[in-house]
Parts: sequence; C-alpha cells; structure tokens
Amino acid sequence: MSLSTGTRGETVPTVPSANPAVDTTAGVDIAALLERGRALSTPVLRAAVDRLAAPMDTVAAYHFGWIDAQGRPADGDGGKAVRPALALLSAEVVGARPEVGVPGAVAVELVHNFSLLHDDLMDGDEQRRHRDTVWKVHGPAQAILVGDALFALANELLLELGTVEAGRATRRLTAATRGLIDGQAQDISFEHRERVTVEECLEMEGNKTGALLACAVSIGAVLGGADDRTADTLEAYGYHLGLAFQAVDDLLGIWGDPVATGKQTWSDLRQRKKSLPVVAALAEGGAASRQLGELLAADAKSTEFASFSEEEFAVRAALIEEAGGREWTSQEARRQHAVAIEALDGIEMPDLVRAQLVALADFVVVRKK
Amino acid sequence: MSLSTGTRGETVPTVPSANPAVDTTAGVDIAALLERGRALSTPVLRAAVDRLAAPMDTVAAYHFGWIDAQGRPADGDGGKAVRPALALLSAEVVGARPEVGVPGAVAVELVHNFSLLHDDLMDGDEQRRHRDTVWKVHGPAQAILVGDALFALANELLLELGTVEAGRATRRLTAATRGLIDGQAQDISFEHRERVTVEECLEMEGNKTGALLACAVSIGAVLGGADDRTADTLEAYGYHLGLAFQAVDDLLGIWGDPVATGKQTWSDLRQRKKSLPVVAALAEGGAASRQLGELLAADAKSTEFASFSEEEFAVRAALIEEAGGREWTSQEARRQHAVAIEALDGIEMPDLVRAQLVALADFVVVRKK
Repeated sequence: MSLSTGTRGETVPTVPSANPAVDTTAGVDIAALLERGRALSTPVLRAAVDRLAAPMDTVAAYHFGWIDAQGRPADGDGGKAVRPALALLSAEVVGARPEVGVPGAVAVELVHNFSLLHDDLMDGDEQRRHRDTVWKVHGPAQAILVGDALFALANELLLELGTVEAGRATRRLTAATRGLIDGQAQDISFEHRERVTVEECLEMEGNKTGALLACAVSIGAVLGGADDRTADTLEAYGYHLGLAFQAVDDLLGIWGDPVATGKQTWSDLRQRKKSLPVVAALAEGGAASRQLGELLAADAKSTEFASFSEEEFAVRAALIEEAGGREWTSQEARRQHAVAIEALDGIEMPDLVRAQLVALADFVVVRKK
Repeated sequence: MSLSTGTRGETVPTVPSANPAVDTTAGVDIAALLERGRALSTPVLRAAVDRLAAPMDTVAAYHFGWIDAQGRPADGDGGKAVRPALALLSAEVVGARPEVGVPGAVAVELVHNFSLLHDDLMDGDEQRRHRDTVWKVHGPAQAILVGDALFALANELLLELGTVEAGRATRRLTAATRGLIDGQAQDISFEHRERVTVEECLEMEGNKTGALLACAVSIGAVLGGADDRTADTLEAYGYHLGLAFQAVDDLLGIWGDPVATGKQTWSDLRQRKKSLPVVAALAEGGAASRQLGELLAADAKSTEFASFSEEEFAVRAALIEEAGGREWTSQEARRQHAVAIEALDGIEMPDLVRAQLVALADFVVVRKK
C-alpha cells in the first residue's frame, strides 16, 4: 500500500459538497434536522424504556443520561442524534411523513445503546459521554441485563406495528445487529494481535459503525413501504457514511480536542486501539512506520504503559502522522463520504430530502466531536 | 398461607393422567417424540450456529456440547429437548407438518441458550450440563458476545422466512425473551432480599421458565397459520407446564439425585436460592419454619457458609420438609400440570396430537433430571 506523506493540518478533513458546481446543501439547517430527530424520537424512546421492569428502567435511564447515579433527574448529553435524523429523512425519501420513521429511529437507538452497554463492559471502559459507564455504577450484571432488554425492546417496538413492513424492518435491523456483534468480535480479536491489515480494520469498522448507520437510513423508508432496491441503495449510502464517520472518529480518538470529545488526550493510543491511522501508518513501511511498529510492539509488553506520560503518547502520534496515517485516514473519510453521496444518485427522491441527506453527510465528516 | 405437613416420599410427585377415566396418553412414545424434535431441529441449529463468525462459532459449539474446550468433537448432553418436541407438535395442532415448526423450535433453543450464556455469567455459575460454563472456559466477553449473537440469530432465522406468520412468531418470541430478562432481573434482586413471597417467586419462575415454554408451544402453530386465540390458549398450556416444570426443578435442586441431575447435592441450598420449597417453608410460619428462617438469616451473614458440610445442608433441607415446603411444591407441580392440561380443552386438534401434548406434560412432571 502506498501512502502520501502526512502534513500537520486540520483535525478533520475539509469536505467539499458532492458536486461543487451545484451546492445542493445550501440552506439546509443541520441543527434543526438533528433537533427534529431528537424531538420526535426521544418521547417514544423514553416511553419504551419505561416499559422495563425495575430496576432495569432506572439503569437504562441512567445510561441515557436522564438521571444521575443517585437517581436525580439529569440533562445528559444525548449524543449527536444523527441516526434518528437519518431514520426520519429515510421515511421522507419514499414520500412518507417523517413520523413513519419514528419507531425505526427508536429501534435503531435501542440497538445502538444495547451494544454500548455490552461493549463498555467487555472493553472495561469506565467512561462514556463524560460519565461513569453502567457496569461501573450499577455492576456487570445490570449492564448485561439492561443491554439484553434494550435489544429485545427494539424488536418489540417494531413488531408490535404488526405490518409486513415492520417485519422487513426488523429483519434489516437484525442483520445490522449481527454486524455490530461481528465487529465487536473482530475488535476484541485485534487486541491480541500485533498486526491488523487496513482491509481488516475497514471490515471491522464497517460492521461496528457502517451496518447500523446503514439500517438507520433504510428503516424509515422500509416502514414507509420502500422496495428492497431502494432500501439497499439507502443502506449503501449509510454504510459508506458510517465508514466516513468512523474514520473521523479515529482521527478524533488521537488528535481530537478532549474538551469537545469528552475523552482523554490520545484516547485511542492509551487504549492501544488498532484504529485506521495506526493501521495505515504501520502498513506504510517507511522509517517512521518501522519505528512506530517497534515502539508499539514494545508497548504491548511494557509493564509501565499505564503510567506513560503525555509526551510518550505525543511521540507515537507524531510517528503515526509522519508515516502518513493521519493523512490517509483523512483522505479515507473523504473517499467514503464521496461514495456515500454517489449512492444517492441511484434513487428518486424529493430534492429537499436529497439536499438534507447530503448536508448530513457533510456534517458527519466535518464534526469536531 | 396454610401448608399441609410434608411427608418424606417421592423425589418428584406422582402425576395421574388428566382424566383418569380415559387414559389419553396410552401408547404415546415420549422418547420417540423427543428424538423427533432433536433429529429435525439439531441440523438446523448447527447450520445456524455455523453462520457465526470465528471465534463465536467455536464458542457456541462448545456451549452446545458439540466440541470440548480443546475444540475436539464431543457428544455432549444436549438436554431433554422438550421445547423442540413441543414446537413441532405445536405445528401439528393446526394441521401443519411438524417440519413447519422447525425454525420456531430452533429460534426458541437459540433464545434459551442466549439466556443460559448470560445468566451463567451474571450468576457466576461455573458448571452447566456437567461441564465448565462458557465464561469460565472462553472468558466473560465471549459469553456476552455469543449470547448476543444467538439472540440475534433467533430473530434472523424466523424473519428470513419472510412471511406474515414469521413476523407474528418473532413478536411472540420477543415477548417471551422479555419475560426471560424480567425473570432474571427478579432472580438477581431476590438474592439481596431476606424474604420473598410465594407469589413473587411464582411470578419470577413464570418469567424465567413459563414464558419461553409457552412460546415453544405456540410458535409452531403460529408458523402454521394459527389465529391469536389458538396461539394464546397453547401459550396458557405452555406457561403452566413451565411452572410445573420449574416446581419439579426446584424439588430436584434440593432433593435430586446428583448422578441424574449433574448438579451437586443440595445444589440450590448451596447457592442460597430462594426457590419454591424454601419460600413456601418460610411462609408456613410454624416452629420449623421459624427455625429455618433464623438459620438462613444467619447463613446469609456467615463467613463459613462456603465450607458448610453435607450435614449442615441436610439440616436445612429437613426443616424445609418439616415446614411443608417440599409437599407444597410437589402439590404446586400437580396443580400447574392440571391447569396446563385443562387449557388444551379450549382448542380443537387431532386426538393423537392432544394425547402427545398430555403425555409430554406428564413426562415433564415425573422426570428425575
């Protein structure tokens, strides 16, 4: 694999609109789109969580940031809400009202949070969205149990619609969930391996991030009666958008601003994550790449890794950049973004909806957190 | 609550046929029924598990007893296979071929095993079916991950049938899964409580055992086109059969023969389980009941509980029996068995299928393991 030499530049790539000649995204209010997704889906999500028996309802409410560890009402960071916004737009692609996408939006959020609960426990992650994770506060059993319950609830919510479309939507959600699980299995196996290829890393990230984003973008359309070809094409947009999203996440995981991301500096390096910038840098093969490889191999065995200083991580980050890992990942985000936008050409849809999907794709790639 | 005084008798209750005047179960070959369920569902189950990515396929194969911890082929104890047998009969209730019930039988087994994988980890149980549990052999992360994968696979298997009936079957399976999860949440919460009422215990057991058995008995019928009333009635039979099954399990958990059950002597007492005999004995309120209550309260705080001798558990078992807990549970198994059989009166079905359902109910209640 050949990589261009990295330059110290933007934290995240600058993304041009799909077709620079016609700025289709002009006038799209991203904040309003995200807010609409949040406003329509959150009450349904809360009502769904309320169905859980005690103490699972409380544990889930803590996880979603609606209450604190003492059970007092809280106004937590609900995340970017990109998936709900996409699920609602997805219904509008086939001419349905955005409300038609709401059960899909909520089901996707439930599955996403099921995977967070279980992954945080498996990975031993103690912090999420600036707060202690569920297993840390409520214990491992509750993290497992509430994760399971959210997964079941997602299916329940869709299937109780009782329509043929709901069955098709649930089938797609199940496929996405299998992807999530496969991706986590790959992620875990990578931890024990010295080398991971760029292709393996992309496959893992496609499973962990692409599959569910793909489902978010098709589920509203499927509930609105879309045929399989339309749903598949929307999934292609979502899948590549997910890969772009993850590439940006991988950049932020190393070079992101801790104040914005809520993570520690060099977060992914501290966790020894074999993320795209690392894997790409190791694949480049030049002097910095080889030096990085030797350092990381030694780190894997080092008993002092836990007490590494900021400077030691900064050295590794600089080598990744020198070996082109940062620039390659930045380009990869742009490549996947372009493929995602291109997929939209395959479907008829209202101009406004298309502009909104393009604008959301742009947003995902230029975000700072 | 008033309880009759227990007598030292059979390990499990003797169950008369539903209507002693007409022995409807004469000539039913239980072994053949169970074997048919196993023979038709196991290949589909194995093919489903083969869909899992490595290493989850291997971990699942270990869990099902198809390979040992070193990956060598094994011929493990696949369990009694009551649920698959019921799922196939369930299709025949509505005149469909038994094969129609197979995806339902396999989906139910997948959900059952998902719950075993997660429950064993939550409960810290190190042994299942005479072997080390998955979390013990392959680690907690694999137990979580493979459990999740089996749950997803269950939905996948049903929904890829692509029929309206499959959607309805998946909805019922999802409801049963929610029951399993609720039951486990209750079971966990009981561990931290000194007293649990008989009603609470029955509700927990209805969730943990009744819900999925109910689904096994309706899922084949639903896949075969049953209306909701028929499915609900079959679920009533299955739910009460599940409660009878669990009452017998609770008896075997204390007085079962370790050679037959594969568990330690006094297994449930060693685990401080608040099972039906214990809860019923504590509710009785006489001298033995009060003495038992004091002993168990002291045990909960004892630092020497882990090194208790056989005799110490035997004393507790004798008190449970003296306070009527054994006899009450035995009667409860008969009561639930009778309610289950009665439910079948509400549905038209071929005489042979009815006789087989009755015979299976008898079998569940008189089993020794």
